[in-house]
Amino acid sequence: MEDNKKNVVVILLILIFSTSFCSHTSGEQANEAKSEENLIILDKKALVIVISQSGETADSLAALRIIKEKKPLTLSICNAVNSSIARETDGVLYTHAGPEIGVAATKTYSAQMVALALLAMHLAQIKGRIDEKASLALIEELGRIPHKMEIILNQAKSIEDLASKFVSFSHFLYLGRGVSFPVALEGALKLKEISYIHAEAYPGGEMKHGPIALIDKNMPTMAIVPRDRVYEKMLSNISEIKAR
Amino acid sequence: MEDNKKNVVVILLILIFSTSFCSHTSGEQANEAKSEENLIILDKKALVIVISQSGETADSLAALRIIKEKKPLTLSICNAVNSSIARETDGVLYTHAGPEIGVAATKTYSAQMVALALLAMHLAQIKGRIDEKASLALIEELGRIPHKMEIILNQAKSIEDLASKFVSFSHFLYLGRGVSFPVALEGALKLKEISYIHAEAYPGGEMKHGPIALIDKNMPTMAIVPRDRVYEKMLSNISEIKAR
Repeated sequence: MEDNKKNVVVILLILIFSTSFCSHTSGEQANEAKSEENLIILDKKALVIVISQSGETADSLAALRIIKEKKPLTLSICNAVNSSIARETDGVLYTHAGPEIGVAATKTYSAQMVALALLAMHLAQIKGRIDEKASLALIEELGRIPHKMEIILNQAKSIEDLASKFVSFSHFLYLGRGVSFPVALEGALKLKEISYIHAEAYPGGEMKHGPIALIDKNMPTMAIVPRDRVYEKMLSNISEIKAR
Repeated sequence: MEDNKKNVVVILLILIFSTSFCSHTSGEQANEAKSEENLIILDKKALVIVISQSGETADSLAALRIIKEKKPLTLSICNAVNSSIARETDGVLYTHAGPEIGVAATKTYSAQMVALALLAMHLAQIKGRIDEKASLALIEELGRIPHKMEIILNQAKSIEDLASKFVSFSHFLYLGRGVSFPVALEGALKLKEISYIHAEAYPGGEMKHGPIALIDKNMPTMAIVPRDRVYEKMLSNISEIKAR
Protein backbone atom coordinates (compact mmCIF):
# COMPACT_ATOMS: atom_id res chain seq x y z
CA MET A 1 0.00 0.00 0.00
CA GLU A 2 3.09 2.27 0.01
CA ASP A 3 2.14 4.09 -3.24
CA ASN A 4 -1.27 5.14 -2.04
CA LYS A 5 -0.25 6.67 1.23
CA LYS A 6 0.19 10.24 0.02
CA ASN A 7 -3.30 10.46 -1.44
CA VAL A 8 -4.99 8.95 1.49
CA VAL A 9 -6.73 10.30 4.57
CA VAL A 10 -9.84 11.72 3.12
CA ILE A 11 -11.86 9.57 5.41
CA LEU A 12 -10.87 7.28 8.21
CA LEU A 13 -13.66 4.95 9.08
CA ILE A 14 -12.76 2.96 12.13
CA LEU A 15 -14.49 -0.29 12.90
CA ILE A 16 -14.28 -1.47 16.43
CA PHE A 17 -16.60 -4.06 17.81
CA SER A 18 -14.66 -5.60 20.61
CA THR A 19 -14.51 -2.60 22.91
CA SER A 20 -16.57 0.49 23.55
CA PHE A 21 -13.86 2.81 22.28
CA CYS A 22 -15.72 5.10 19.94
CA SER A 23 -18.76 2.87 20.12
CA HIS A 24 -20.94 5.95 20.22
CA THR A 25 -19.27 7.45 17.21
CA SER A 26 -17.33 5.51 14.63
CA GLY A 27 -18.26 2.16 16.14
CA GLU A 28 -21.94 2.83 15.71
CA GLN A 29 -21.29 3.99 12.19
CA ALA A 30 -19.36 0.80 11.55
CA ASN A 31 -22.26 -1.26 12.73
CA GLU A 32 -24.29 0.28 9.98
CA ALA A 33 -21.43 0.55 7.51
CA LYS A 34 -23.29 -1.68 5.13
CA SER A 35 -26.00 0.91 4.63
CA GLU A 36 -26.05 3.00 1.49
CA GLU A 37 -25.86 6.21 3.51
CA ASN A 38 -22.42 5.39 4.81
CA LEU A 39 -21.10 3.73 1.67
CA ILE A 40 -21.70 6.92 -0.31
CA ILE A 41 -18.77 8.66 1.32
CA LEU A 42 -16.33 5.86 0.54
CA ASP A 43 -14.14 5.80 -2.54
CA LYS A 44 -10.55 5.21 -3.60
CA LYS A 45 -9.43 8.21 -1.56
CA ALA A 46 -10.69 6.72 1.66
CA LEU A 47 -8.72 4.62 4.08
CA VAL A 48 -10.87 2.19 6.03
CA ILE A 49 -9.34 0.84 9.21
CA VAL A 50 -10.81 -2.33 10.66
CA ILE A 51 -9.86 -3.08 14.24
CA SER A 52 -10.47 -6.58 15.48
CA GLN A 53 -8.60 -8.55 18.12
CA SER A 54 -9.53 -11.95 16.73
CA GLY A 55 -9.70 -10.80 13.13
CA GLU A 56 -12.75 -13.02 12.82
CA THR A 57 -15.54 -10.83 14.26
CA ALA A 58 -18.49 -11.70 12.02
CA ASP A 59 -20.02 -8.19 11.86
CA SER A 60 -16.70 -6.52 11.06
CA LEU A 61 -15.87 -9.08 8.41
CA ALA A 62 -19.29 -8.70 6.77
CA ALA A 63 -18.97 -4.88 6.83
CA LEU A 64 -15.45 -5.09 5.38
CA ARG A 65 -16.59 -7.22 2.46
CA ILE A 66 -19.38 -4.84 1.52
CA ILE A 67 -17.15 -1.80 1.99
CA LYS A 68 -14.52 -3.32 -0.32
CA GLU A 69 -16.94 -3.06 -3.24
CA LYS A 70 -16.31 0.69 -3.12
CA LYS A 71 -12.57 0.04 -3.53
CA PRO A 72 -11.23 2.09 -0.64
CA LEU A 73 -7.80 1.31 0.74
CA THR A 74 -8.23 -1.03 3.69
CA LEU A 75 -6.03 -1.58 6.71
CA SER A 76 -6.61 -3.87 9.65
CA ILE A 77 -5.28 -3.77 13.18
CA CYS A 78 -5.48 -7.36 14.37
CA ASN A 79 -4.02 -9.45 17.10
CA ALA A 80 -4.53 -12.90 15.57
CA VAL A 81 -1.98 -13.50 12.85
CA ASN A 82 -3.33 -14.60 9.48
CA SER A 83 -6.96 -14.17 10.55
CA SER A 84 -9.71 -13.54 7.97
CA ILE A 85 -9.78 -9.75 8.42
CA ALA A 86 -5.97 -9.59 8.32
CA ARG A 87 -5.97 -11.55 5.05
CA GLU A 88 -8.77 -9.59 3.39
CA THR A 89 -7.36 -6.10 3.97
CA ASP A 90 -4.69 -4.37 1.85
CA GLY A 91 -2.44 -3.92 4.86
CA VAL A 92 -2.30 -5.19 8.40
CA LEU A 93 -0.75 -3.97 11.63
CA TYR A 94 -0.40 -6.88 14.03
CA THR A 95 -0.58 -5.97 17.70
CA HIS A 96 1.26 -9.13 18.91
CA ALA A 97 -0.30 -8.75 22.36
CA GLY A 98 -0.63 -12.47 23.02
CA PRO A 99 -3.95 -14.27 23.48
CA GLU A 100 -6.75 -12.18 25.03
CA ILE A 101 -8.14 -14.09 27.99
CA GLY A 102 -10.01 -11.51 30.09
CA VAL A 103 -13.70 -10.75 29.42
CA ALA A 104 -12.82 -7.07 29.55
CA ALA A 105 -10.08 -6.68 26.97
CA THR A 106 -7.20 -4.65 28.34
CA LYS A 107 -3.87 -5.57 26.81
CA THR A 108 -5.24 -5.94 23.27
CA TYR A 109 -7.12 -2.66 23.68
CA SER A 110 -3.95 -0.87 24.82
CA ALA A 111 -1.99 -2.40 21.95
CA GLN A 112 -4.64 -1.20 19.47
CA MET A 113 -4.38 2.33 20.85
CA VAL A 114 -0.60 2.26 20.44
CA ALA A 115 -0.94 0.99 16.87
CA LEU A 116 -3.39 3.82 16.07
CA ALA A 117 -1.09 6.39 17.68
CA LEU A 118 1.89 5.19 15.62
CA LEU A 119 -0.19 5.18 12.44
CA ALA A 120 -1.47 8.71 13.12
CA MET A 121 2.09 9.85 13.71
CA HIS A 122 3.34 8.25 10.52
CA LEU A 123 0.57 9.84 8.44
CA ALA A 124 1.31 13.19 10.09
CA GLN A 125 4.99 12.81 9.10
CA ILE A 126 4.08 12.11 5.45
CA LYS A 127 1.81 15.13 5.40
CA GLY A 128 4.48 17.28 7.05
CA ARG A 129 2.31 18.04 10.04
CA ILE A 130 4.85 16.91 12.61
CA ASP A 131 8.63 17.29 12.74
CA GLU A 132 11.21 14.70 13.71
CA LYS A 133 11.73 16.10 17.19
CA ALA A 134 8.03 15.94 18.04
CA SER A 135 7.82 12.42 16.59
CA LEU A 136 10.72 11.26 18.73
CA ALA A 137 9.15 12.80 21.81
CA LEU A 138 5.90 10.94 21.11
CA ILE A 139 7.69 7.64 20.61
CA GLU A 140 9.60 8.11 23.85
CA GLU A 141 6.33 8.81 25.60
CA LEU A 142 4.83 5.60 24.19
CA GLY A 143 7.90 3.74 25.39
CA ARG A 144 7.19 4.91 28.93
CA ILE A 145 3.80 3.19 29.01
CA PRO A 146 5.02 -0.14 30.50
CA HIS A 147 6.77 1.78 33.30
CA LYS A 148 3.63 3.88 33.92
CA MET A 149 1.48 0.76 34.02
CA GLU A 150 3.82 -0.67 36.62
CA ILE A 151 3.42 2.43 38.79
CA ILE A 152 -0.34 1.96 38.69
CA LEU A 153 -0.18 -1.79 39.36
CA ASN A 154 2.04 -1.09 42.36
CA GLN A 155 -0.87 0.81 43.88
CA ALA A 156 -2.93 -2.39 44.11
CA LYS A 157 -3.50 -1.91 47.83
CA SER A 158 -5.02 1.57 47.60
CA ILE A 159 -7.04 0.51 44.54
CA GLU A 160 -8.48 -2.34 46.62
CA ASP A 161 -9.37 0.14 49.37
CA LEU A 162 -11.16 2.35 46.86
CA ALA A 163 -12.96 -0.65 45.40
CA SER A 164 -14.34 -1.70 48.79
CA LYS A 165 -15.51 1.87 49.32
CA PHE A 166 -17.46 1.86 46.05
CA VAL A 167 -18.54 -1.75 45.66
CA SER A 168 -22.02 -1.18 47.09
CA PHE A 169 -22.96 1.61 44.68
CA SER A 170 -25.27 0.71 41.85
CA HIS A 171 -24.51 3.78 39.72
CA PHE A 172 -21.33 5.31 38.42
CA LEU A 173 -20.53 8.21 36.15
CA TYR A 174 -17.33 8.44 34.09
CA LEU A 175 -16.38 11.87 32.84
CA GLY A 176 -13.88 12.77 30.16
CA ARG A 177 -13.27 15.57 27.67
CA GLY A 178 -11.61 15.48 24.27
CA VAL A 179 -9.47 12.35 23.82
CA SER A 180 -10.36 11.30 27.34
CA PHE A 181 -14.02 10.84 26.48
CA PRO A 182 -13.41 7.51 24.68
CA VAL A 183 -11.30 6.50 27.69
CA ALA A 184 -14.29 7.28 29.92
CA LEU A 185 -16.52 5.20 27.63
CA GLU A 186 -14.10 2.31 27.91
CA GLY A 187 -13.89 2.63 31.70
CA ALA A 188 -17.66 2.66 32.07
CA LEU A 189 -17.93 -0.40 29.84
CA LYS A 190 -15.38 -2.32 31.92
CA LEU A 191 -17.28 -1.55 35.11
CA LYS A 192 -20.55 -2.69 33.53
CA GLU A 193 -19.07 -5.91 32.18
CA ILE A 194 -17.15 -6.96 35.26
CA SER A 195 -19.00 -5.52 38.24
CA TYR A 196 -22.57 -5.23 36.91
CA ILE A 197 -22.66 -1.61 38.10
CA HIS A 198 -24.61 0.75 35.83
CA ALA A 199 -21.77 2.98 34.73
CA GLU A 200 -22.26 5.67 32.12
CA ALA A 201 -19.68 7.82 30.41
CA TYR A 202 -20.44 11.43 29.60
CA PRO A 203 -18.48 14.23 27.93
CA GLY A 204 -17.48 16.70 30.65
CA GLY A 205 -18.75 19.70 28.72
CA GLU A 206 -22.23 18.23 28.36
CA MET A 207 -22.84 17.70 32.08
CA LYS A 208 -24.48 21.02 32.63
CA HIS A 209 -27.03 20.30 29.91
CA GLY A 210 -28.86 17.68 31.94
CA PRO A 211 -26.88 14.87 33.59
CA ILE A 212 -25.69 17.14 36.41
CA ALA A 213 -29.25 16.74 37.76
CA LEU A 214 -28.46 13.10 38.58
CA ILE A 215 -25.50 13.82 40.81
CA ASP A 216 -26.03 13.10 44.50
CA LYS A 217 -24.29 11.04 47.18
CA ASN A 218 -25.37 7.82 45.45
CA MET A 219 -23.70 8.63 42.16
CA PRO A 220 -19.90 8.42 42.39
CA THR A 221 -18.04 10.12 39.57
CA MET A 222 -14.77 8.93 38.06
CA ALA A 223 -13.13 11.78 36.16
CA ILE A 224 -10.34 11.18 33.63
CA VAL A 225 -8.09 14.20 34.04
CA PRO A 226 -4.76 14.13 32.19
CA ARG A 227 -2.76 17.34 32.16
CA ASP A 228 -3.75 18.20 28.61
CA ARG A 229 -5.33 21.27 27.02
CA VAL A 230 -8.72 20.60 28.67
CA TYR A 231 -7.26 20.10 32.15
CA GLU A 232 -8.61 23.37 33.55
CA LYS A 233 -12.04 22.74 32.05
CA MET A 234 -12.18 19.31 33.65
CA LEU A 235 -11.26 20.79 37.03
CA SER A 236 -14.14 23.20 36.63
CA ASN A 237 -16.50 20.29 35.77
CA ILE A 238 -15.33 18.49 38.88
CA SER A 239 -15.98 21.57 41.07
CA GLU A 240 -19.52 21.76 39.71
CA ILE A 241 -20.06 18.12 40.62
CA LYS A 242 -18.59 18.53 44.10
CA ALA A 243 -20.90 21.50 44.70
CA ARG A 244 -23.98 19.24 44.36
CA MET B 1 -24.61 32.42 0.68
CA GLU B 2 -26.32 31.31 -2.55
CA ASP B 3 -23.10 31.34 -4.62
CA ASN B 4 -21.22 29.02 -2.31
CA LYS B 5 -23.79 26.29 -2.06
CA LYS B 6 -22.51 24.13 -4.88
CA ASN B 7 -19.00 23.91 -3.50
CA VAL B 8 -20.05 23.21 -0.03
CA VAL B 9 -20.55 20.09 2.05
CA VAL B 10 -17.03 18.97 2.54
CA ILE B 11 -17.54 19.05 6.24
CA LEU B 12 -20.59 19.69 8.32
CA LEU B 13 -19.64 20.48 11.85
CA ILE B 14 -22.73 20.69 13.97
CA LEU B 15 -22.69 22.53 17.25
CA ILE B 16 -25.45 21.68 19.63
CA PHE B 17 -25.27 22.55 23.27
CA SER B 18 -28.86 22.76 24.29
CA THR B 19 -29.80 19.11 23.85
CA SER B 20 -28.02 15.78 23.91
CA PHE B 21 -28.64 15.17 20.22
CA CYS B 22 -25.25 14.11 18.98
CA SER B 23 -23.71 15.17 22.27
CA HIS B 24 -21.50 12.12 22.13
CA THR B 25 -20.40 12.85 18.61
CA SER B 26 -20.51 16.24 16.99
CA GLY B 27 -21.57 17.96 20.19
CA GLU B 28 -18.49 16.81 22.02
CA GLN B 29 -16.39 17.86 19.05
CA ALA B 30 -18.08 21.24 19.13
CA ASN B 31 -17.21 21.66 22.75
CA GLU B 32 -13.60 21.38 21.79
CA ALA B 33 -13.99 23.11 18.43
CA LYS B 34 -11.62 25.80 19.56
CA SER B 35 -8.74 23.34 19.72
CA GLU B 36 -6.18 23.29 16.95
CA GLU B 37 -6.90 19.64 16.20
CA ASN B 38 -10.41 20.37 15.08
CA LEU B 39 -9.70 23.68 13.41
CA ILE B 40 -7.25 22.02 11.02
CA ILE B 41 -10.03 20.38 9.07
CA LEU B 42 -11.92 23.63 8.53
CA ASP B 43 -11.52 25.81 5.46
CA LYS B 44 -13.57 27.67 2.86
CA LYS B 45 -15.02 24.39 1.61
CA ALA B 46 -16.54 23.60 4.97
CA LEU B 47 -20.01 24.49 6.10
CA VAL B 48 -20.30 24.95 9.85
CA ILE B 49 -23.78 24.73 11.29
CA VAL B 50 -24.39 26.22 14.72
CA ILE B 51 -27.58 25.14 16.42
CA SER B 52 -28.75 27.21 19.35
CA GLN B 53 -32.27 27.82 20.59
CA SER B 54 -31.45 31.14 22.24
CA GLY B 55 -28.72 32.08 19.80
CA GLU B 56 -26.82 33.37 22.82
CA THR B 57 -25.24 30.18 24.26
CA ALA B 58 -21.84 31.40 25.44
CA ASP B 59 -19.84 28.29 24.51
CA SER B 60 -21.34 28.09 21.02
CA LEU B 61 -20.78 31.76 20.40
CA ALA B 62 -17.15 31.56 21.55
CA ALA B 63 -16.57 28.50 19.34
CA LEU B 64 -18.21 30.21 16.36
CA ARG B 65 -15.97 33.25 16.69
CA ILE B 66 -12.80 31.17 16.74
CA ILE B 67 -14.02 28.95 13.91
CA LYS B 68 -14.74 32.00 11.76
CA GLU B 69 -11.03 32.79 11.63
CA LYS B 70 -10.72 29.80 9.29
CA LYS B 71 -13.31 31.42 6.98
CA PRO B 72 -15.69 28.50 6.54
CA LEU B 73 -19.25 29.18 5.45
CA THR B 74 -21.40 29.44 8.57
CA LEU B 75 -25.09 28.78 9.06
CA SER B 76 -27.10 28.94 12.23
CA ILE B 77 -30.35 27.30 13.21
CA CYS B 78 -31.80 29.56 15.88
CA ASN B 79 -35.12 30.13 17.53
CA ALA B 80 -34.53 33.65 18.86
CA VAL B 81 -34.72 36.17 16.03
CA ASN B 82 -31.79 38.56 15.69
CA SER B 83 -29.76 36.81 18.42
CA SER B 84 -25.96 37.05 18.49
CA ILE B 85 -25.35 33.70 16.77
CA ALA B 86 -27.98 34.48 14.13
CA ARG B 87 -26.28 37.82 13.41
CA GLU B 88 -22.74 36.46 13.31
CA THR B 89 -23.35 33.61 10.84
CA ASP B 90 -23.50 33.94 7.04
CA GLY B 91 -26.99 32.49 6.95
CA VAL B 92 -29.69 31.66 9.45
CA LEU B 93 -32.65 29.29 9.52
CA TYR B 94 -35.12 30.48 12.14
CA THR B 95 -37.21 27.76 13.75
CA HIS B 96 -40.03 30.11 14.87
CA ALA B 97 -41.07 27.62 17.55
CA GLY B 98 -42.12 30.21 20.11
CA PRO B 99 -40.42 30.71 23.48
CA GLU B 100 -38.94 27.54 25.03
CA ILE B 101 -40.31 27.22 28.55
CA GLY B 102 -39.73 23.57 29.53
CA VAL B 103 -36.48 22.46 31.20
CA ALA B 104 -36.36 19.60 28.72
CA ALA B 105 -36.55 21.28 25.32
CA THR B 106 -39.07 19.51 23.11
CA LYS B 107 -40.68 21.86 20.61
CA THR B 108 -37.48 23.71 19.79
CA TYR B 109 -35.64 20.40 19.49
CA SER B 110 -38.27 19.04 17.08
CA ALA B 111 -38.15 22.26 15.06
CA GLN B 112 -34.34 22.00 14.83
CA MET B 113 -34.63 18.44 13.52
CA VAL B 114 -37.10 19.57 10.86
CA ALA B 115 -34.81 22.43 9.83
CA LEU B 116 -31.89 19.98 9.51
CA ALA B 117 -34.02 17.55 7.50
CA LEU B 118 -35.09 20.29 5.08
CA LEU B 119 -31.50 21.50 4.74
CA ALA B 120 -30.24 17.97 4.07
CA MET B 121 -32.92 17.52 1.44
CA HIS B 122 -32.11 20.80 -0.24
CA LEU B 123 -28.38 19.99 -0.38
CA ALA B 124 -29.24 16.54 -1.77
CA GLN B 125 -31.33 18.20 -4.50
CA ILE B 126 -28.46 20.51 -5.50
CA LYS B 127 -26.10 17.54 -5.64
CA GLY B 128 -28.62 15.53 -7.65
CA ARG B 129 -28.84 12.83 -5.01
CA ILE B 130 -32.61 12.96 -4.70
CA ASP B 131 -35.34 13.44 -7.32
CA GLU B 132 -38.43 15.63 -7.10
CA LYS B 133 -40.75 12.75 -6.31
CA ALA B 134 -38.68 11.61 -3.34
CA SER B 135 -38.38 15.20 -2.11
CA LEU B 136 -42.12 15.69 -2.23
CA ALA B 137 -42.67 12.43 -0.36
CA LEU B 138 -40.28 13.58 2.37
CA ILE B 139 -41.98 16.95 2.67
CA GLU B 140 -45.39 15.30 2.92
CA GLU B 141 -44.01 13.05 5.64
CA LEU B 142 -42.72 16.09 7.56
CA GLY B 143 -46.15 17.67 7.16
CA ARG B 144 -47.69 14.69 8.93
CA ILE B 145 -45.68 15.27 12.10
CA PRO B 146 -48.28 17.48 13.87
CA HIS B 147 -50.93 14.84 13.21
CA LYS B 148 -48.64 12.07 14.48
CA MET B 149 -47.84 14.07 17.60
CA GLU B 150 -51.57 14.40 18.23
CA ILE B 151 -52.00 10.63 18.02
CA ILE B 152 -49.33 10.22 20.67
CA LEU B 153 -50.72 12.96 22.91
CA ASN B 154 -54.15 11.31 22.72
CA GLN B 155 -52.61 8.27 24.43
CA ALA B 156 -51.99 10.30 27.60
CA LYS B 157 -53.89 7.80 29.73
CA SER B 158 -51.86 4.75 28.75
CA ILE B 159 -48.65 6.78 28.98
CA GLU B 160 -49.61 7.66 32.56
CA ASP B 161 -50.21 3.99 33.29
CA LEU B 162 -46.79 3.10 31.91
CA ALA B 163 -45.20 5.91 33.91
CA SER B 164 -46.66 4.66 37.20
CA LYS B 165 -45.36 1.20 36.36
CA PHE B 166 -41.81 2.50 35.87
CA VAL B 167 -41.59 5.43 38.29
CA SER B 168 -39.90 3.39 41.04
CA PHE B 169 -37.02 2.19 38.88
CA SER B 170 -33.70 3.89 39.36
CA HIS B 171 -32.15 2.68 36.07
CA PHE B 172 -33.24 2.85 32.48
CA LEU B 173 -31.67 1.86 29.20
CA TYR B 174 -32.58 3.49 25.88
CA LEU B 175 -31.65 1.56 22.76
CA GLY B 176 -31.49 2.82 19.20
CA ARG B 177 -29.67 2.00 15.99
CA GLY B 178 -28.67 4.26 13.10
CA VAL B 179 -30.63 7.52 13.12
CA SER B 180 -32.54 6.31 16.16
CA PHE B 181 -29.43 6.32 18.33
CA PRO B 182 -29.45 10.13 18.73
CA VAL B 183 -33.18 9.84 19.52
CA ALA B 184 -32.30 7.34 22.26
CA LEU B 185 -29.65 9.76 23.58
CA GLU B 186 -32.24 12.51 23.69
CA GLY B 187 -34.80 10.28 25.42
CA ALA B 188 -32.31 9.22 28.09
CA LEU B 189 -31.36 12.85 28.67
CA LYS B 190 -34.99 13.88 29.14
CA LEU B 191 -35.54 11.12 31.69
CA LYS B 192 -32.41 12.16 33.60
CA GLU B 193 -33.31 15.83 33.61
CA ILE B 194 -36.96 15.50 34.56
CA SER B 195 -37.25 12.31 36.61
CA TYR B 196 -33.75 11.97 38.08
CA ILE B 197 -33.65 8.37 36.84
CA HIS B 198 -30.22 7.20 35.67
CA ALA B 199 -31.03 6.60 32.03
CA GLU B 200 -28.36 5.69 29.52
CA ALA B 201 -28.61 5.42 25.77
CA TYR B 202 -26.71 2.74 23.91
CA PRO B 203 -26.39 1.77 20.26
CA GLY B 204 -28.35 -1.46 19.76
CA GLY B 205 -25.50 -3.17 17.95
CA GLU B 206 -23.09 -2.58 20.82
CA MET B 207 -25.21 -4.23 23.51
CA LYS B 208 -23.62 -7.62 23.11
CA HIS B 209 -20.17 -6.17 23.71
CA GLY B 210 -20.77 -5.53 27.39
CA PRO B 211 -23.92 -3.66 28.47
CA ILE B 212 -26.10 -6.74 28.01
CA ALA B 213 -24.52 -7.93 31.27
CA LEU B 214 -26.46 -5.21 33.12
CA ILE B 215 -29.88 -6.32 32.00
CA ASP B 216 -32.08 -7.81 34.69
CA LYS B 217 -35.55 -7.16 36.09
CA ASN B 218 -34.38 -3.85 37.57
CA MET B 219 -33.24 -2.39 34.26
CA PRO B 220 -36.18 -1.47 32.03
CA THR B 221 -35.27 -0.94 28.39
CA MET B 222 -36.91 1.56 26.07
CA ALA B 223 -36.21 0.62 22.46
CA ILE B 224 -36.69 3.07 19.59
CA VAL B 225 -37.88 0.89 16.72
CA PRO B 226 -39.11 2.70 13.62
CA ARG B 227 -39.81 0.53 10.59
CA ASP B 228 -36.59 1.48 8.87
CA ARG B 229 -33.70 -0.52 7.42
CA VAL B 230 -32.48 -1.61 10.87
CA TYR B 231 -35.94 -2.72 12.06
CA GLU B 232 -35.14 -6.44 11.96
CA LYS B 233 -31.81 -5.90 13.73
CA MET B 234 -33.53 -3.99 16.51
CA LEU B 235 -36.08 -6.77 16.94
CA SER B 236 -33.20 -9.19 17.33
CA ASN B 237 -31.58 -6.90 19.95
CA ILE B 238 -34.88 -6.81 21.82
CA SER B 239 -35.14 -10.62 21.79
CA GLU B 240 -31.66 -10.87 23.27
CA ILE B 241 -32.70 -8.49 26.06
CA LYS B 242 -35.94 -10.34 26.74
CA ALA B 243 -34.01 -13.60 26.99
CA ARG B 244 -32.10 -12.28 30.04
